[in-house]
Amino acid sequence: MTMDRQKVVDLCKASLEDVMVGNDEKGVQNGKDFYKFFFTNYPDLRVYFKGAEKYTADDVQKFCRFAKQGQRILLSVHTVVRLYTDEAVFLGHIRETVNRHRQYKMDPALWLAFFTVFTGFLADRGSLTDEQRAAWMQLGKDFDAECQRHLKENDLPHV
Amino acid sequence: MTMDRQKVVDLCKASLEDVMVGNDEKGVQNGKDFYKFFFTNYPDLRVYFKGAEKYTADDVQKFCRFAKQGQRILLSVHTVVRLYTDEAVFLGHIRETVNRHRQYKMDPALWLAFFTVFTGFLADRGSLTDEQRAAWMQLGKDFDAECQRHLKENDLPHV
Repeated sequence: MTMDRQKVVDLCKASLEDVMVGNDEKGVQNGKDFYKFFFTNYPDLRVYFKGAEKYTADDVQKFCRFAKQGQRILLSVHTVVRLYTDEAVFLGHIRETVNRHRQYKMDPALWLAFFTVFTGFLADRGSLTDEQRAAWMQLGKDFDAECQRHLKENDLPHV
Repeated sequence: MTMDRQKVVDLCKASLEDVMVGNDEKGVQNGKDFYKFFFTNYPDLRVYFKGAEKYTADDVQKFCRFAKQGQRILLSVHTVVRLYTDEAVFLGHIRETVNRHRQYKMDPALWLAFFTVFTGFLADRGSLTDEQRAAWMQLGKDFDAECQRHLKENDLPHV
């Protein structure tokens, strides 16, 4: 069953209330917390972070790189949710995100997998309802569809 | 007089209806059109586009670089408007935009000046009311305030 797009936005936004972006201590920590969760639970994916392939959660906490990287990922997530009701802008954001990641030669399956990782992070913080998870997964499927279409159009590996 | 933020969003969005992002011919042309206007009316600012310092509007039209660059600027503009009612995300977007431009060593006065350029572009296409222009200028002042605050915090040239 497909949810109304505005409902998806409302559910996803509500699930993000406790992981706001920000240059205050809490905002910066929210971003680091995502990478601490990510590196702990998906250590194989650290390979995409050159120089940090062996980082533990403690290393993520310590280094300025993940304060910045954490803001970037949270900002992208907050942004994509808020663009979901404007399809052309939502799709444009996705294509630009894919373009920026081209240099990392990511496994194309990771675009969809990200939403499993990210909802896992939200659930781990105890702030994800089943309905919110369903909303994220719907947005994630639409996100992934444009990623794969764009990758294919540019003769890049896709699924 | 300060406008309600949602009103600013509505006015700016309405003024952008004819310059949507997109990977169709119209969407790509919208982005090129901005740079054609920009390079024609502000030739001194071409200095920030390495290799394109002498480009004419015809050159912009011809080269793939400005198809991509055009999408990026339009996407950023469409995005920032849609984030304006969520202050933390709006400010996060601005800081990230400033971070990405650091390498170009821009005159810091250009962050605010951009909104004069961009509203000039919209007016040139015949799609800007006085009220819409006022909305853009309010958003632009708030945008610029965070740019300058962030530049200052990072010991970079600011106004």
